[in-house]
Amino acid sequence: MSESKDPRVPTGIKGLDEMLGGGFPKGHVVLVTGLPGTGKTCFGLQFLLAGSALGEKGVFLSLEEDAPQLMESGRRFGWPVDESVSAGRLKIIRLDPKETKQNLQRIQGSLGKELKELGAQRIVVDSVSLLNMLSDGEAERRTTLFGLAGACRGAGATTLLTAEADPTHPSISRDGLSEYVADGVVLLGYSQAEEGLRVGLSMRVLKMRRTAHARTVQPYRIGPGGIDVDAKAVDFGRGF
Amino acid sequence: MSESKDPRVPTGIKGLDEMLGGGFPKGHVVLVTGLPGTGKTCFGLQFLLAGSALGEKGVFLSLEEDAPQLMESGRRFGWPVDESVSAGRLKIIRLDPKETKQNLQRIQGSLGKELKELGAQRIVVDSVSLLNMLSDGEAERRTTLFGLAGACRGAGATTLLTAEADPTHPSISRDGLSEYVADGVVLLGYSQAEEGLRVGLSMRVLKMRRTAHARTVQPYRIGPGGIDVDAKAVDFGRGF
Amino acid sequence: MSESKDPRVPTGIKGLDEMLGGGFPKGHVVLVTGLPGTGKTCFGLQFLLAGSALGEKGVFLSLEEDAPQLMESGRRFGWPVDESVSAGRLKIIRLDPKETKQNLQRIQGSLGKELKELGAQRIVVDSVSLLNMLSDGEAERRTTLFGLAGACRGAGATTLLTAEADPTHPSISRDGLSEYVADGVVLLGYSQAEEGLRVGLSMRVLKMRRTAHARTVQPYRIGPGGIDVDAKAVDFGRGF
Amino acid sequence: MSESKDPRVPTGIKGLDEMLGGGFPKGHVVLVTGLPGTGKTCFGLQFLLAGSALGEKGVFLSLEEDAPQLMESGRRFGWPVDESVSAGRLKIIRLDPKETKQNLQRIQGSLGKELKELGAQRIVVDSVSLLNMLSDGEAERRTTLFGLAGACRGAGATTLLTAEADPTHPSISRDGLSEYVADGVVLLGYSQAEEGLRVGLSMRVLKMRRTAHARTVQPYRIGPGGIDVDAKAVDFGRGF
Amino acid sequence: MSESKDPRVPTGIKGLDEMLGGGFPKGHVVLVTGLPGTGKTCFGLQFLLAGSALGEKGVFLSLEEDAPQLMESGRRFGWPVDESVSAGRLKIIRLDPKETKQNLQRIQGSLGKELKELGAQRIVVDSVSLLNMLSDGEAERRTTLFGLAGACRGAGATTLLTAEADPTHPSISRDGLSEYVADGVVLLGYSQAEEGLRVGLSMRVLKMRRTAHARTVQPYRIGPGGIDVDAKAVDFGRGF
Amino acid sequence: MSESKDPRVPTGIKGLDEMLGGGFPKGHVVLVTGLPGTGKTCFGLQFLLAGSALGEKGVFLSLEEDAPQLMESGRRFGWPVDESVSAGRLKIIRLDPKETKQNLQRIQGSLGKELKELGAQRIVVDSVSLLNMLSDGEAERRTTLFGLAGACRGAGATTLLTAEADPTHPSISRDGLSEYVADGVVLLGYSQAEEGLRVGLSMRVLKMRRTAHARTVQPYRIGPGGIDVDAKAVDFGRGF
Repeated sequence: MSESKDPRVPTGIKGLDEMLGGGFPKGHVVLVTGLPGTGKTCFGLQFLLAGSALGEKGVFLSLEEDAPQLMESGRRFGWPVDESVSAGRLKIIRLDPKETKQNLQRIQGSLGKELKELGAQRIVVDSVSLLNMLSDGEAERRTTLFGLAGACRGAGATTLLTAEADPTHPSISRDGLSEYVADGVVLLGYSQAEEGLRVGLSMRVLKMRRTAHARTVQPYRIGPGGIDVDAKAVDFGRGF
Repeated sequence: MSESKDPRVPTGIKGLDEMLGGGFPKGHVVLVTGLPGTGKTCFGLQFLLAGSALGEKGVFLSLEEDAPQLMESGRRFGWPVDESVSAGRLKIIRLDPKETKQNLQRIQGSLGKELKELGAQRIVVDSVSLLNMLSDGEAERRTTLFGLAGACRGAGATTLLTAEADPTHPSISRDGLSEYVADGVVLLGYSQAEEGLRVGLSMRVLKMRRTAHARTVQPYRIGPGGIDVDAKAVDFGRGF
Repeated sequence: MSESKDPRVPTGIKGLDEMLGGGFPKGHVVLVTGLPGTGKTCFGLQFLLAGSALGEKGVFLSLEEDAPQLMESGRRFGWPVDESVSAGRLKIIRLDPKETKQNLQRIQGSLGKELKELGAQRIVVDSVSLLNMLSDGEAERRTTLFGLAGACRGAGATTLLTAEADPTHPSISRDGLSEYVADGVVLLGYSQAEEGLRVGLSMRVLKMRRTAHARTVQPYRIGPGGIDVDAKAVDFGRGF
Repeated sequence: MSESKDPRVPTGIKGLDEMLGGGFPKGHVVLVTGLPGTGKTCFGLQFLLAGSALGEKGVFLSLEEDAPQLMESGRRFGWPVDESVSAGRLKIIRLDPKETKQNLQRIQGSLGKELKELGAQRIVVDSVSLLNMLSDGEAERRTTLFGLAGACRGAGATTLLTAEADPTHPSISRDGLSEYVADGVVLLGYSQAEEGLRVGLSMRVLKMRRTAHARTVQPYRIGPGGIDVDAKAVDFGRGF
Repeated sequence: MSESKDPRVPTGIKGLDEMLGGGFPKGHVVLVTGLPGTGKTCFGLQFLLAGSALGEKGVFLSLEEDAPQLMESGRRFGWPVDESVSAGRLKIIRLDPKETKQNLQRIQGSLGKELKELGAQRIVVDSVSLLNMLSDGEAERRTTLFGLAGACRGAGATTLLTAEADPTHPSISRDGLSEYVADGVVLLGYSQAEEGLRVGLSMRVLKMRRTAHARTVQPYRIGPGGIDVDAKAVDFGRGF
Repeated sequence: MSESKDPRVPTGIKGLDEMLGGGFPKGHVVLVTGLPGTGKTCFGLQFLLAGSALGEKGVFLSLEEDAPQLMESGRRFGWPVDESVSAGRLKIIRLDPKETKQNLQRIQGSLGKELKELGAQRIVVDSVSLLNMLSDGEAERRTTLFGLAGACRGAGATTLLTAEADPTHPSISRDGLSEYVADGVVLLGYSQAEEGLRVGLSMRVLKMRRTAHARTVQPYRIGPGGIDVDAKAVDFGRGF
């Protein structure tokens, strides 16, 4: 299988790229699901900065944090967020949850065109859980989520959606809907919390269409340079 | 029991055919239930390509992915999807979830006739979970699902419906309704995820009307050629 | 206790008759509850064919399968379904779930009279879960179910209602209502599914009014001749 | 404490009387909660027949079974139900669940007067779960249940209410409401069902106002003469 | 810390006073939560009689039992309830659950004034679960509960509210609301019920504002003189 | 990383400061989640008094307790609450839950301006669970919570929100909404309660944006001087 037929988008997380055989398949919408504190926002920023380092354009659609907060988060990890913004390779679009109706209209209206005009190759939405929480009723929820995913796909970008995990079933998202628009699902999880013990983090590729992927559960940490997957024991095998 | 009295439709998955004593009974509506990443879409494509190889016509009713994505998925597994489409032995019908009302009307209206005119011998619906999620209210849900199953049966085809498993009870579908229209249920499941360990996949025939079937839980993998069931330890016995 | 005072209706399942001390008490409405694939429809057919062999008339009220499918299921088990139908000892009444309102009206209206005129000694309803699912709202559900049970009792028949088990509590029906109209409850269950192991089936008489019954859990299989209970270890004792 | 100050109503179940220090306190409303098949109706009949043997009048308010069925159940246990009825010491009042509205009106209207005129010293309601299921909405449910309990108390009788246990929490009733009108709660439970093993029954006095009672879990069986508690190991202690 | 700055109200249960460092802090609203049969009503009476023995006035607001029943319960434990009532140190106010609306109006209206005029130093409400069950809708529930707690606080009394525990999470009340009006929570619980074994009772102070308290789980019994906590192993430590 | 770029707000709890690398990041909104009795209100007061000792101004928005009660709580811990109030470094604003509508209007209206004019550097809201319970419907709940968080952020303060933990999933808040407005989450939890054993308390930093933090579970106690974390075994590592 030649590279040209199977273009990959490096995730910015070396160990995860190993688990995926090179990165996310280009054009995929990937859902990153995890409980609070598992590093979903960090994952999103790291993904965009990895693109920026390759000269790609990225857009961060933020429902949870303001742009200055996100920028500061990036600086803390030592990432060149300011340079990326100046160079037009990183754009943060704030969808303020207090302006619910305007945001929903924008998503179903002009957003697709905006993203296309920006020429975004990578898009992050952080988080679709909040998006769904802002929508009233199942129908509006579906319309908004499908509209958003459609806008991202339509822009030709590889998209990463973050979502809160369901506390009862941490392998699905809290809204139980986001999985339906995704080509792939990456789970961020905790080991059991016990007094006096460090609570570990682990990553698993639950699903990734049109590519083989590891089906192992890999430990990771959120270190000074971002998410760092321990790729020892990656059993890639030949499985899809 | 002579073959002519018990016509079988090979599933395209050798190990599963062993578990079923030759394949799905002809004309059955079979539900394939599994959590995300267990290969339900792959199963559906594999089922249709197996028919195409036998010269049968197949229709893929897709609610989740676009035709080009599905075609690409098939190519990745090395299946002759392009040839099958050209030869008229594979047709992908996209039911875009964004056009909810049109789809529901089509299903309850012209779809049965369309399927009959196409002469489809195999039909896949991927997935009925999304179909049910698009319907509003219990009554519409029932009407749509029963209408769809009726259209497939009316066309004389052997039908495979995929459905998301309920995370709490992975042996039933998430909507809890699809089982009622099915003659058979095949479960795709995970072994427990543990850090550093490969997460295994296993298949079980929960129910299959009018045929004996194995009641064992068989490991499988999604390899470069699709789903591959490890048929060792199939305890077919003589049970139904 | 003389036989004449305690007339029994053999179930067609020898081991179960042993567990019940001879069969269902005549005139009882018995609920058979189980998860998909436990053989509820098979149980119903077997019960009617056992009656037919004794010259009794039986009616199968089918909400899930069409008459030809049911007939075929019976033939597969080697039962003389065609002869029974020809001889007027087996009648299949199809209540098509797509014609919801007509069915509900019939059940609350003419059905009791129909059953009485047919002189049915055994009646099977497969399944009351679907019946309840078709009714809208608690009140309609109750009216329909109580009406149906009343029609069967009024016809003087011994009745078997099948119901889906609740996945969370497999010892009760999914609607949680059917138990209220039943004099007896028979549970069909699974042993825990584990990879590489055969999933066993087991039967338990949870409740049976006006008769002592075994309170043991007995393994069974669905073999080429239908349900076959392993009656070893039946601890009938003297308990009710 | 002299007997005259602590009048007791023997339950008809010797082992239970031991657990209670002589029987139910006179005038109590006692809830008997259990899953199907634990013998709740049997308990109720046994309680009334014990009273009849002492020359007391009893009323059985039946929502589940018809009078002939109940009479037959009693005869099977060898109890003199016909004599008791003839002698006016047992009266069965059928509250047909199909005549919902009439029943609810009767309960809130004339029932209290009826019970008083009958001079009932013991009353059984079988079951309040069905009563609650027939009521629509919380408010009607409460009014009906409180009205019923009030009518029984007002008649000066000692009352036994049967209720379905909640499958999830078998120590409470399914409606979660009946406990509020009861002075005492007796639980009928199952041991865990396992293949090849007899499923045991056990009884526990969860609560009984104004009397000390055993706080042990006692095995019982439903034998040819009714419920029979194994009173070995009753640890009455001195606890309330 | 001098006594005058930290006035305590002895609970009437010696072992609990040890767990609390002398009793409930004066003026607290304390929630006593437990499953049926754990002795909540007994606790309430015992608390008031302890006050009466010290010459304090107490009011028992009863939603579950009538005054004569409560008086009789007290006599059974050998408490001087009649003397206390005669001396004006115990007053039972019956809030009949059948007169729902009048009660709710009284609670939100005149009750605060009544309690103040009575000069109650101790108040028991048995139970707030029933109070909440009688209220329709969340808003009415909140208004009633907050109104009641306000009336008790406004009267300057130390108040004990009893509440049914949630069967799923026995450390919270069934309505999940009562905790919000309480300064302290005392849990009454069961050890696991097992056949042939005595079911034990244990008490835990979950929370008590403005005082250190033991964080141990202490066994107790309901003996002939009321609740009796085994204070061995009270690990008061110095914790709050 | 120089201090000026990463200003910290000491929490008043020495061990927690160690877990956080110096305190909460300045300007963060931190959620403190715990079951009743874990010391959430104590945490809030301790946080404000720590600020007061540094000459900072703090505001306590109290939905649960009155100002005198809170003041008394502080005195019990030996904290100079009276001096802090006199010196204008501690202000308690009572949001009485009985005046629901006024409070909600204030929060969405003037509160932001009030907080800014007060020059609050630290704000505590105790508790947002009650705030959410007072709001009717999802939309009002969101508007209120986002409005409150916005008002606190807008005032430039570092904010601590307390929330009841969900009894089923104690690592999330009961409303499941508060996490969305928080930059950090601190969990206060119990060890399993067992008879005769002390129930331990433990603290965990689940999430803290823009700073590395320990991922260990640390025991703590509520002692005479407030919350005291046992910092032994803090495994700060280098993780975020």
